[in-house]
Amino acid sequence: MVIARVKGTVVSTNKADKIQGFKLLVLKPIDLDTMEEKGTMLVGVDTVGAGVGEVVMTVAGSSSRQTEKTDGRPVDCSVIAIIDHIDIEGKRVFEKFN
Amino acid sequence: MVIARVKGTVVSTNKADKIQGFKLLVLKPIDLDTMEEKGTMLVGVDTVGAGVGEVVMTVAGSSSRQTEKTDGRPVDCSVIAIIDHIDIEGKRVFEKFN
Amino acid sequence: MVIARVKGTVVSTNKADKIQGFKLLVLKPIDLDTMEEKGTMLVGVDTVGAGVGEVVMTVAGSSSRQTEKTDGRPVDCSVIAIIDHIDIEGKRVFEKFN
Amino acid sequence: MVIARVKGTVVSTNKADKIQGFKLLVLKPIDLDTMEEKGTMLVGVDTVGAGVGEVVMTVAGSSSRQTEKTDGRPVDCSVIAIIDHIDIEGKRVFEKFN
Amino acid sequence: MVIARVKGTVVSTNKADKIQGFKLLVLKPIDLDTMEEKGTMLVGVDTVGAGVGEVVMTVAGSSSRQTEKTDGRPVDCSVIAIIDHIDIEGKRVFEKFN
Repeated sequence: MVIARVKGTVVSTNKADKIQGFKLLVLKPIDLDTMEEKGTMLVGVDTVGAGVGEVVMTVAGSSSRQTEKTDGRPVDCSVIAIIDHIDIEGKRVFEKFN
Repeated sequence: MVIARVKGTVVSTNKADKIQGFKLLVLKPIDLDTMEEKGTMLVGVDTVGAGVGEVVMTVAGSSSRQTEKTDGRPVDCSVIAIIDHIDIEGKRVFEKFN
Repeated sequence: MVIARVKGTVVSTNKADKIQGFKLLVLKPIDLDTMEEKGTMLVGVDTVGAGVGEVVMTVAGSSSRQTEKTDGRPVDCSVIAIIDHIDIEGKRVFEKFN
Repeated sequence: MVIARVKGTVVSTNKADKIQGFKLLVLKPIDLDTMEEKGTMLVGVDTVGAGVGEVVMTVAGSSSRQTEKTDGRPVDCSVIAIIDHIDIEGKRVFEKFN
Repeated sequence: MVIARVKGTVVSTNKADKIQGFKLLVLKPIDLDTMEEKGTMLVGVDTVGAGVGEVVMTVAGSSSRQTEKTDGRPVDCSVIAIIDHIDIEGKRVFEKFN
Protein backbone atom coordinates (compact mmCIF):
# COMPACT_ATOMS: atom_id res chain seq x y z
CA MET A 1 0.00 0.00 0.00
CA VAL A 2 1.06 3.60 -0.53
CA ILE A 3 0.93 6.49 1.95
CA ALA A 4 -0.37 9.71 0.40
CA ARG A 5 -1.79 13.10 1.29
CA VAL A 6 -5.26 14.13 0.12
CA LYS A 7 -4.79 17.21 -2.04
CA GLY A 8 -8.18 17.80 -3.64
CA THR A 9 -11.21 16.45 -5.44
CA VAL A 10 -12.32 15.51 -8.94
CA VAL A 11 -15.91 16.06 -10.14
CA SER A 12 -17.54 14.42 -13.15
CA THR A 13 -21.16 14.36 -14.34
CA ASN A 14 -20.69 12.11 -17.38
CA LYS A 15 -19.23 8.93 -15.90
CA ALA A 16 -19.74 5.19 -15.61
CA ASP A 17 -22.94 4.30 -13.74
CA LYS A 18 -21.02 2.11 -11.33
CA ILE A 19 -19.04 5.04 -9.91
CA GLN A 20 -22.01 7.40 -9.43
CA GLY A 21 -21.88 8.98 -5.98
CA PHE A 22 -18.24 8.15 -5.34
CA LYS A 23 -16.04 10.84 -3.82
CA LEU A 24 -12.94 11.04 -5.98
CA LEU A 25 -9.83 12.31 -4.19
CA VAL A 26 -6.64 13.73 -5.68
CA LEU A 27 -3.74 12.02 -3.89
CA LYS A 28 -0.04 12.89 -3.68
CA PRO A 29 2.30 10.08 -2.56
CA ILE A 30 4.53 10.71 0.47
CA ASP A 31 8.14 9.46 0.41
CA LEU A 32 8.51 7.66 3.75
CA ASP A 33 12.29 8.20 3.72
CA THR A 34 11.80 11.96 4.02
CA MET A 35 8.05 12.34 4.71
CA GLU A 36 8.00 14.80 1.79
CA GLU A 37 5.40 14.68 -0.96
CA LYS A 38 6.94 13.05 -4.03
CA GLY A 39 5.86 11.41 -7.25
CA THR A 40 2.90 11.58 -9.58
CA MET A 41 -0.52 12.54 -8.23
CA LEU A 42 -3.34 10.10 -8.85
CA VAL A 43 -7.06 9.78 -8.14
CA GLY A 44 -8.62 7.38 -5.65
CA VAL A 45 -12.07 6.60 -4.26
CA ASP A 46 -12.70 7.58 -0.65
CA THR A 47 -14.04 4.76 1.55
CA VAL A 48 -13.24 6.20 5.01
CA GLY A 49 -14.36 9.84 4.98
CA ALA A 50 -10.92 11.34 4.33
CA GLY A 51 -10.60 15.08 3.78
CA VAL A 52 -8.11 17.41 2.10
CA GLY A 53 -4.84 17.61 4.06
CA GLU A 54 -5.14 14.21 5.72
CA VAL A 55 -2.49 11.50 5.38
CA VAL A 56 -4.04 8.26 4.18
CA MET A 57 -3.22 4.74 3.01
CA THR A 58 -4.21 3.76 -0.51
CA VAL A 59 -4.54 0.35 -2.11
CA ALA A 60 -4.21 -0.24 -5.85
CA GLY A 61 -5.38 -2.62 -8.56
CA SER A 62 -7.94 -5.38 -8.02
CA SER A 63 -7.33 -5.06 -4.27
CA SER A 64 -8.95 -1.61 -4.35
CA ARG A 65 -12.22 -3.40 -5.16
CA GLN A 66 -12.16 -5.52 -1.97
CA THR A 67 -14.27 -3.08 0.07
CA GLU A 68 -18.06 -3.15 0.43
CA LYS A 69 -18.29 0.17 -1.40
CA THR A 70 -16.03 -0.62 -4.35
CA ASP A 71 -16.86 -4.30 -4.97
CA GLY A 72 -17.28 -4.86 -8.72
CA ARG A 73 -16.67 -1.19 -9.55
CA PRO A 74 -14.25 0.16 -12.19
CA VAL A 75 -11.79 1.68 -9.71
CA ASP A 76 -8.07 0.94 -9.35
CA CYS A 77 -7.22 3.02 -6.27
CA SER A 78 -9.09 3.25 -2.96
CA VAL A 79 -8.37 5.20 0.20
CA ILE A 80 -8.79 2.60 2.97
CA ALA A 81 -7.30 4.22 6.09
CA ILE A 82 -6.58 7.58 7.70
CA ILE A 83 -3.13 7.34 9.30
CA ASP A 84 -2.67 8.11 13.02
CA HIS A 85 1.07 7.66 13.22
CA ILE A 86 4.07 6.13 11.48
CA ASP A 87 7.17 4.87 13.30
CA ILE A 88 10.43 4.13 11.47
CA GLU A 89 13.40 2.61 13.30
CA GLY A 90 11.94 3.55 16.68
CA LYS A 91 11.32 7.17 15.72
CA ARG A 92 7.87 8.71 15.23
CA VAL A 93 8.09 10.25 11.75
CA PHE A 94 4.43 11.18 11.48
CA GLU A 95 1.63 11.86 13.95
CA LYS A 96 -1.83 13.04 13.02
CA PHE A 97 -2.71 16.50 14.26
CA ASN A 98 -5.88 16.38 16.39
CA MET B 1 -7.16 6.35 -11.56
CA VAL B 2 -5.26 8.60 -13.95
CA ILE B 3 -6.39 11.90 -15.48
CA ALA B 4 -5.56 12.18 -19.18
CA ARG B 5 -6.42 14.13 -22.29
CA VAL B 6 -7.87 12.39 -25.34
CA LYS B 7 -5.42 12.98 -28.19
CA GLY B 8 -6.61 10.72 -30.99
CA THR B 9 -7.84 7.36 -32.16
CA VAL B 10 -6.50 3.96 -33.18
CA VAL B 11 -8.11 1.86 -35.92
CA SER B 12 -7.61 -1.87 -36.48
CA THR B 13 -9.39 -4.34 -38.77
CA ASN B 14 -7.52 -7.48 -37.75
CA LYS B 15 -8.16 -7.69 -34.01
CA ALA B 16 -9.54 -9.95 -31.29
CA ASP B 17 -13.28 -10.64 -31.74
CA LYS B 18 -13.99 -9.46 -28.22
CA ILE B 19 -12.91 -5.88 -28.98
CA GLN B 20 -14.81 -5.52 -32.27
CA GLY B 21 -16.70 -2.22 -32.33
CA PHE B 22 -14.73 -0.64 -29.50
CA LYS B 23 -13.59 2.96 -29.92
CA LEU B 24 -9.89 3.02 -29.07
CA LEU B 25 -8.62 6.37 -27.79
CA VAL B 26 -5.04 7.65 -27.63
CA LEU B 27 -4.57 9.16 -24.17
CA LYS B 28 -1.89 11.47 -22.77
CA PRO B 29 -1.60 11.61 -18.96
CA ILE B 30 -1.92 15.02 -17.27
CA ASP B 31 0.42 15.87 -14.36
CA LEU B 32 -1.96 17.22 -11.69
CA ASP B 33 0.86 19.22 -10.07
CA THR B 34 1.13 21.41 -13.14
CA MET B 35 -1.90 20.41 -15.26
CA GLU B 36 0.56 19.89 -18.13
CA GLU B 37 0.52 16.80 -20.33
CA LYS B 38 3.32 14.48 -19.23
CA GLY B 39 4.36 10.87 -19.57
CA THR B 40 3.86 8.07 -22.05
CA MET B 41 0.73 8.00 -24.22
CA LEU B 42 -1.38 4.88 -24.04
CA VAL B 43 -4.55 3.49 -25.58
CA GLY B 44 -7.87 3.03 -23.77
CA VAL B 45 -11.41 1.96 -24.60
CA ASP B 46 -14.05 4.65 -24.56
CA THR B 47 -17.11 3.87 -22.38
CA VAL B 48 -18.54 7.40 -21.98
CA GLY B 49 -18.52 9.02 -25.43
CA ALA B 50 -15.31 11.02 -24.92
CA GLY B 51 -13.89 13.01 -27.82
CA VAL B 52 -10.50 14.37 -28.83
CA GLY B 53 -9.45 17.27 -26.57
CA GLU B 54 -11.52 16.25 -23.56
CA VAL B 55 -10.01 15.63 -20.12
CA VAL B 56 -11.02 12.21 -18.83
CA MET B 57 -10.42 9.72 -16.04
CA THR B 58 -8.99 6.33 -16.93
CA VAL B 59 -8.90 3.10 -14.97
CA ALA B 60 -6.28 0.40 -15.53
CA GLY B 61 -5.82 -3.34 -15.19
CA SER B 62 -8.58 -5.78 -14.25
CA SER B 63 -10.61 -2.80 -12.97
CA SER B 64 -10.94 -1.55 -16.56
CA ARG B 65 -13.11 -4.61 -17.19
CA GLN B 66 -15.67 -3.69 -14.50
CA THR B 67 -18.00 -1.86 -16.90
CA GLU B 68 -20.94 -3.35 -18.78
CA LYS B 69 -19.14 -2.73 -22.07
CA THR B 70 -15.73 -4.15 -21.16
CA ASP B 71 -16.73 -7.11 -18.95
CA GLY B 72 -14.63 -10.14 -19.95
CA ARG B 73 -12.84 -8.26 -22.73
CA PRO B 74 -9.06 -8.15 -23.30
CA VAL B 75 -8.64 -4.48 -22.35
CA ASP B 76 -6.41 -3.00 -19.65
CA CYS B 77 -7.42 0.67 -19.82
CA SER B 78 -10.91 2.19 -19.97
CA VAL B 79 -12.10 5.78 -20.08
CA ILE B 80 -14.82 5.91 -17.40
CA ALA B 81 -15.49 9.64 -16.86
CA ILE B 82 -15.32 13.02 -18.57
CA ILE B 83 -14.00 15.50 -16.00
CA ASP B 84 -16.00 18.64 -15.13
CA HIS B 85 -13.57 20.22 -12.70
CA ILE B 86 -10.61 19.48 -10.45
CA ASP B 87 -9.92 21.35 -7.19
CA ILE B 88 -6.54 21.16 -5.45
CA GLU B 89 -5.99 22.83 -2.07
CA GLY B 90 -9.07 25.00 -2.51
CA LYS B 91 -8.09 26.21 -5.97
CA ARG B 92 -9.87 25.23 -9.18
CA VAL B 93 -7.04 23.91 -11.36
CA PHE B 94 -9.26 22.62 -14.17
CA GLU B 95 -12.73 23.43 -15.43
CA LYS B 96 -14.30 21.95 -18.52
CA PHE B 97 -15.01 24.43 -21.27
CA ASN B 98 -18.70 24.37 -22.21
CA MET C 1 -3.08 -0.88 -24.07
CA VAL C 2 0.35 -0.30 -25.55
CA ILE C 3 1.30 0.12 -29.21
CA ALA C 4 4.43 -1.82 -30.16
CA ARG C 5 6.35 -3.14 -33.14
CA VAL C 6 6.98 -6.86 -33.54
CA LYS C 7 10.75 -7.33 -33.56
CA GLY C 8 11.29 -11.07 -33.37
CA THR C 9 10.45 -14.38 -31.78
CA VAL C 10 11.34 -16.47 -28.74
CA VAL C 11 11.57 -20.26 -28.86
CA SER C 12 11.48 -22.61 -25.87
CA THR C 13 11.21 -26.41 -25.65
CA ASN C 14 11.17 -26.73 -21.85
CA LYS C 15 8.15 -24.65 -20.85
CA ALA C 16 4.85 -24.77 -18.97
CA ASP C 17 2.36 -27.18 -20.60
CA LYS C 18 -0.25 -24.45 -20.80
CA ILE C 19 1.82 -22.35 -23.22
CA GLN C 20 2.75 -25.20 -25.61
CA GLY C 21 2.18 -24.14 -29.21
CA PHE C 22 2.03 -20.43 -28.46
CA LYS C 23 3.91 -18.08 -30.77
CA LEU C 24 5.98 -15.80 -28.54
CA LEU C 25 6.76 -12.40 -30.05
CA VAL C 26 9.48 -9.93 -29.05
CA LEU C 27 7.82 -6.50 -28.86
CA LYS C 28 9.29 -2.99 -28.76
CA PRO C 29 6.97 -0.22 -27.50
CA ILE C 30 6.36 2.78 -29.78
CA ASP C 31 6.25 6.28 -28.25
CA LEU C 32 3.07 7.80 -29.73
CA ASP C 33 4.42 11.34 -29.24
CA THR C 34 7.16 10.68 -31.79
CA MET C 35 6.20 7.31 -33.31
CA GLU C 36 9.76 6.19 -32.51
CA GLU C 37 10.54 2.88 -30.82
CA LYS C 38 11.28 3.52 -27.14
CA GLY C 39 11.44 1.64 -23.87
CA THR C 40 12.12 -1.91 -22.78
CA MET C 41 11.35 -4.81 -25.10
CA LEU C 42 9.04 -7.49 -23.76
CA VAL C 43 7.53 -10.79 -24.90
CA GLY C 44 3.87 -11.34 -25.76
CA VAL C 45 1.67 -14.12 -27.11
CA ASP C 46 0.36 -13.69 -30.63
CA THR C 47 -3.43 -14.07 -30.99
CA VAL C 48 -3.95 -12.36 -34.37
CA GLY C 49 -1.26 -13.71 -36.72
CA ALA C 50 1.10 -10.75 -36.37
CA GLY C 51 4.50 -10.88 -38.08
CA VAL C 52 7.89 -9.22 -37.62
CA GLY C 53 7.76 -5.54 -38.57
CA GLU C 54 4.04 -5.04 -37.93
CA VAL C 55 2.67 -2.43 -35.55
CA VAL C 56 0.35 -4.03 -33.04
CA MET C 57 -1.66 -3.36 -29.88
CA THR C 58 -0.79 -5.31 -26.75
CA VAL C 59 -2.75 -5.86 -23.56
CA ALA C 60 -1.12 -6.64 -20.22
CA GLY C 61 -1.85 -8.42 -16.96
CA SER C 62 -4.97 -10.47 -16.27
CA SER C 63 -6.60 -8.78 -19.27
CA SER C 64 -4.17 -10.59 -21.56
CA ARG C 65 -5.94 -13.81 -20.57
CA GLN C 66 -9.36 -12.61 -21.82
CA THR C 67 -9.01 -14.17 -25.27
CA GLU C 68 -10.15 -17.65 -26.31
CA LYS C 69 -6.53 -18.68 -26.86
CA THR C 70 -5.04 -17.36 -23.61
CA ASP C 71 -7.89 -18.08 -21.15
CA GLY C 72 -6.40 -19.59 -17.99
CA ARG C 73 -2.84 -19.54 -19.36
CA PRO C 74 0.24 -18.15 -17.57
CA VAL C 75 0.72 -15.16 -19.89
CA ASP C 76 0.81 -11.47 -18.97
CA CYS C 77 1.02 -9.88 -22.42
CA SER C 78 -1.02 -10.66 -25.54
CA VAL C 79 -1.00 -9.14 -29.01
CA ILE C 80 -4.71 -8.50 -29.75
CA ALA C 81 -4.72 -6.24 -32.83
CA ILE C 82 -2.72 -5.32 -35.91
CA ILE C 83 -2.95 -1.54 -36.32
CA ASP C 84 -4.26 -0.01 -39.55
CA HIS C 85 -3.82 3.65 -38.69
CA ILE C 86 -3.40 6.06 -35.79
CA ASP C 87 -4.67 9.64 -35.84
CA ILE C 88 -3.48 12.23 -33.29
CA GLU C 89 -5.01 15.74 -33.23
CA GLY C 90 -6.42 15.32 -36.71
CA LYS C 91 -3.14 14.17 -38.23
CA ARG C 92 -2.45 10.63 -39.47
CA VAL C 93 0.72 9.67 -37.60
CA PHE C 94 0.75 6.02 -38.69
CA GLU C 95 -0.68 4.09 -41.60
CA LYS C 96 -0.05 0.43 -42.28
CA PHE C 97 1.86 -0.25 -45.47
CA ASN C 98 -0.14 -2.57 -47.73
CA MET D 1 8.50 -11.13 -5.34
CA VAL D 2 10.58 -8.36 -3.82
CA ILE D 3 13.13 -8.62 -1.01
CA ALA D 4 12.82 -5.80 1.54
CA ARG D 5 13.84 -4.80 5.04
CA VAL D 6 11.19 -4.06 7.67
CA LYS D 7 11.74 -0.45 8.75
CA GLY D 8 8.75 0.40 10.91
CA THR D 9 5.00 0.33 11.45
CA VAL D 10 1.89 2.25 10.45
CA VAL D 11 -1.05 2.71 12.83
CA SER D 12 -4.58 3.72 11.85
CA THR D 13 -7.82 3.82 13.85
CA ASN D 14 -10.15 4.95 11.06
CA LYS D 15 -9.74 2.24 8.44
CA ALA D 16 -11.65 -0.30 6.34
CA ASP D 17 -13.30 -3.00 8.52
CA LYS D 18 -11.61 -5.72 6.51
CA ILE D 19 -8.11 -4.67 7.62
CA GLN D 20 -8.90 -4.30 11.35
CA GLY D 21 -6.23 -6.02 13.43
CA PHE D 22 -3.67 -6.20 10.63
CA LYS D 23 -0.08 -5.31 11.45
CA LEU D 24 1.05 -2.82 8.81
CA LEU D 25 4.78 -2.79 8.14
CA VAL D 26 6.89 -0.10 6.48
CA LEU D 27 9.15 -1.85 3.97
CA LYS D 28 12.27 -0.69 2.13
CA PRO D 29 13.27 -2.70 -0.96
CA ILE D 30 16.77 -4.20 -1.07
CA ASP D 31 18.75 -4.08 -4.35
CA LEU D 32 20.00 -7.65 -4.74
CA ASP D 33 22.92 -6.48 -6.93
CA THR D 34 24.43 -4.60 -3.97
CA MET D 35 22.32 -5.75 -1.00
CA GLU D 36 21.81 -2.04 -0.23
CA GLU D 37 18.41 -0.54 0.55
CA LYS D 38 17.11 1.23 -2.55
CA GLY D 39 13.86 2.53 -3.96
CA THR D 40 10.57 3.76 -2.60
CA MET D 41 9.31 2.53 0.76
CA LEU D 42 5.88 0.95 0.83
CA VAL D 43 3.48 -0.60 3.33
CA GLY D 44 2.64 -4.30 3.57
CA VAL D 45 0.59 -6.59 5.80
CA ASP D 46 2.55 -8.94 8.03
CA THR D 47 1.51 -12.63 7.73
CA VAL D 48 4.62 -14.28 9.27
CA GLY D 49 5.44 -12.35 12.46
CA ALA D 50 8.20 -10.21 10.95
CA GLY D 51 9.83 -7.50 13.07
CA VAL D 52 11.72 -4.27 12.42
CA GLY D 53 15.19 -4.96 11.00
CA GLU D 54 14.35 -8.33 9.43
CA VAL D 55 14.84 -9.08 5.74
CA VAL D 56 11.62 -10.40 4.23
CA MET D 57 9.99 -11.39 0.94
CA THR D 58 6.93 -9.46 -0.18
CA VAL D 59 4.29 -10.30 -2.75
CA ALA D 60 2.23 -7.66 -4.56
CA GLY D 61 -1.15 -7.22 -6.22
CA SER D 62 -3.92 -9.83 -6.20
CA SER D 63 -1.31 -12.42 -5.20
CA SER D 64 -0.94 -10.68 -1.82
CA ARG D 65 -4.50 -11.83 -1.08
CA GLN D 66 -3.67 -15.55 -1.53
CA THR D 67 -2.98 -16.16 2.17
CA GLU D 68 -5.50 -17.31 4.79
CA LYS D 69 -5.15 -13.97 6.57
CA THR D 70 -5.50 -11.66 3.57
CA ASP D 71 -8.09 -13.54 1.47
CA GLY D 72 -10.67 -11.04 0.18
CA ARG D 73 -9.04 -8.10 1.95
CA PRO D 74 -8.15 -4.71 0.40
CA VAL D 75 -4.38 -5.21 0.57
CA ASP D 76 -1.89 -5.10 -2.30
CA CYS D 77 1.33 -6.08 -0.50
CA SER D 78 1.90 -8.91 1.98
CA VAL D 79 5.01 -10.07 3.81
CA ILE D 80 5.05 -13.84 3.23
CA ALA D 81 8.53 -14.98 4.31
CA ILE D 82 11.42 -14.09 6.59
CA ILE D 83 14.63 -14.72 4.65
CA ASP D 84 17.32 -17.05 6.01
CA HIS D 85 19.90 -16.65 3.28
CA ILE D 86 20.36 -15.53 -0.32
CA ASP D 87 22.99 -17.02 -2.64
CA ILE D 88 23.97 -15.31 -5.92
CA GLU D 89 26.40 -16.98 -8.35
CA GLY D 90 27.61 -19.37 -5.67
CA LYS D 91 28.30 -16.63 -3.12
CA ARG D 92 26.28 -16.10 0.05
CA VAL D 93 25.24 -12.44 -0.17
CA PHE D 94 22.90 -12.48 2.84
CA GLU D 95 22.57 -14.60 5.94
CA LYS D 96 20.15 -13.95 8.77
CA PHE D 97 21.79 -13.08 12.07
CA ASN D 98 20.65 -15.50 14.77
CA MET E 1 6.59 -11.67 -20.22
CA VAL E 2 10.14 -10.78 -19.28
CA ILE E 3 13.35 -12.55 -20.26
CA ALA E 4 15.79 -12.93 -17.34
CA ARG E 5 18.86 -14.84 -16.25
CA VAL E 6 18.75 -17.04 -13.14
CA LYS E 7 21.36 -15.62 -10.73
CA GLY E 8 20.78 -17.46 -7.48
CA THR E 9 18.39 -18.74 -4.85
CA VAL E 10 16.52 -17.51 -1.78
CA VAL E 11 15.93 -19.74 1.27
CA SER E 12 13.35 -19.16 4.00
CA THR E 13 12.19 -21.36 6.88
CA ASN E 14 9.53 -19.04 8.29
CA LYS E 15 7.18 -18.52 5.37
CA ALA E 16 3.55 -18.81 4.27
CA ASP E 17 2.34 -22.44 4.27
CA LYS E 18 1.23 -22.13 0.67
CA ILE E 19 4.78 -21.59 -0.62
CA GLN E 20 6.40 -24.44 1.33
CA GLY E 21 8.65 -26.48 -0.94
CA PHE E 22 8.86 -23.87 -3.66
CA LYS E 23 12.26 -23.18 -5.22
CA LEU E 24 12.74 -19.41 -5.14
CA LEU E 25 15.04 -18.05 -7.84
CA VAL E 26 16.85 -14.70 -7.97
CA LEU E 27 16.29 -13.29 -11.47
CA LYS E 28 18.03 -10.50 -13.37
CA PRO E 29 16.15 -9.06 -16.38
CA ILE E 30 17.91 -9.10 -19.76
CA ASP E 31 17.58 -6.06 -22.05
CA LEU E 32 16.64 -7.58 -25.42
CA ASP E 33 18.06 -4.55 -27.29
CA THR E 34 21.57 -5.40 -26.09
CA MET E 35 21.16 -8.86 -24.49
CA GLU E 36 22.90 -7.36 -21.43
CA GLU E 37 21.60 -7.84 -17.89
CA LYS E 38 19.79 -4.68 -16.83
CA GLY E 39 17.30 -3.51 -14.22
CA THR E 40 16.26 -4.57 -10.74
CA MET E 41 16.65 -8.19 -9.66
CA LEU E 42 13.53 -9.92 -8.41
CA VAL E 43 12.49 -13.30 -7.04
CA GLY E 44 10.36 -15.86 -8.87
CA VAL E 45 9.08 -19.40 -8.33
CA ASP E 46 10.62 -22.08 -10.51
CA THR E 47 8.08 -24.26 -12.37
CA VAL E 48 10.35 -25.75 -15.07
CA GLY E 49 13.55 -26.91 -13.32
CA ALA E 50 15.63 -23.86 -14.22
CA GLY E 51 19.15 -23.55 -12.80
CA VAL E 52 21.61 -20.74 -12.13
CA GLY E 53 22.98 -19.25 -15.36
CA GLU E 54 20.03 -20.23 -17.55
CA VAL E 55 18.02 -17.69 -19.56
CA VAL E 56 14.32 -18.01 -18.77
CA MET E 57 10.95 -16.40 -19.38
CA THR E 58 9.04 -15.06 -16.39
CA VAL E 59 5.39 -14.14 -16.00
CA ALA E 60 4.14 -11.61 -13.44
CA GLY E 61 1.04 -10.81 -11.41
CA SER E 62 -2.08 -12.98 -11.29
CA SER E 63 -0.86 -14.72 -14.45
CA SER E 64 2.01 -16.23 -12.46
CA ARG E 65 -0.63 -18.27 -10.61
CA GLN E 66 -1.95 -19.93 -13.79
CA THR E 67 0.26 -23.01 -13.50
CA GLU E 68 -0.62 -26.26 -11.75
CA LYS E 69 2.11 -25.62 -9.17
CA THR E 70 1.28 -22.00 -8.34
CA ASP E 71 -2.54 -22.06 -8.53
CA GLY E 72 -3.94 -20.14 -5.54
CA ARG E 73 -0.50 -19.43 -4.09
CA PRO E 74 0.81 -16.02 -2.93
CA VAL E 75 3.35 -15.60 -5.72
CA ASP E 76 3.60 -12.77 -8.25
CA CYS E 77 6.41 -14.04 -10.48
CA SER E 78 6.89 -17.52 -11.98
CA VAL E 79 9.56 -18.93 -14.26
CA ILE E 80 7.58 -20.71 -16.99
CA ALA E 81 10.11 -21.45 -19.73
CA ILE E 82 13.81 -22.07 -20.36
CA ILE E 83 14.74 -20.22 -23.54
CA ASP E 84 16.33 -22.07 -26.48
CA HIS E 85 16.86 -19.14 -28.80
CA ILE E 86 15.74 -15.59 -29.52
CA ASP E 87 15.67 -14.09 -33.01
CA ILE E 88 15.37 -10.33 -33.58
CA GLU E 89 15.01 -8.89 -37.10
CA GLY E 90 16.26 -12.10 -38.67
CA LYS E 91 19.36 -12.32 -36.47
CA ARG E 92 19.89 -14.92 -33.73
CA VAL E 93 20.67 -12.80 -30.66
CA PHE E 94 20.63 -15.67 -28.17
CA GLU E 95 21.13 -19.42 -28.39
CA LYS E 96 21.23 -21.73 -25.41
CA PHE E 97 24.58 -23.41 -24.87
CA ASN E 98 24.15 -27.20 -24.87
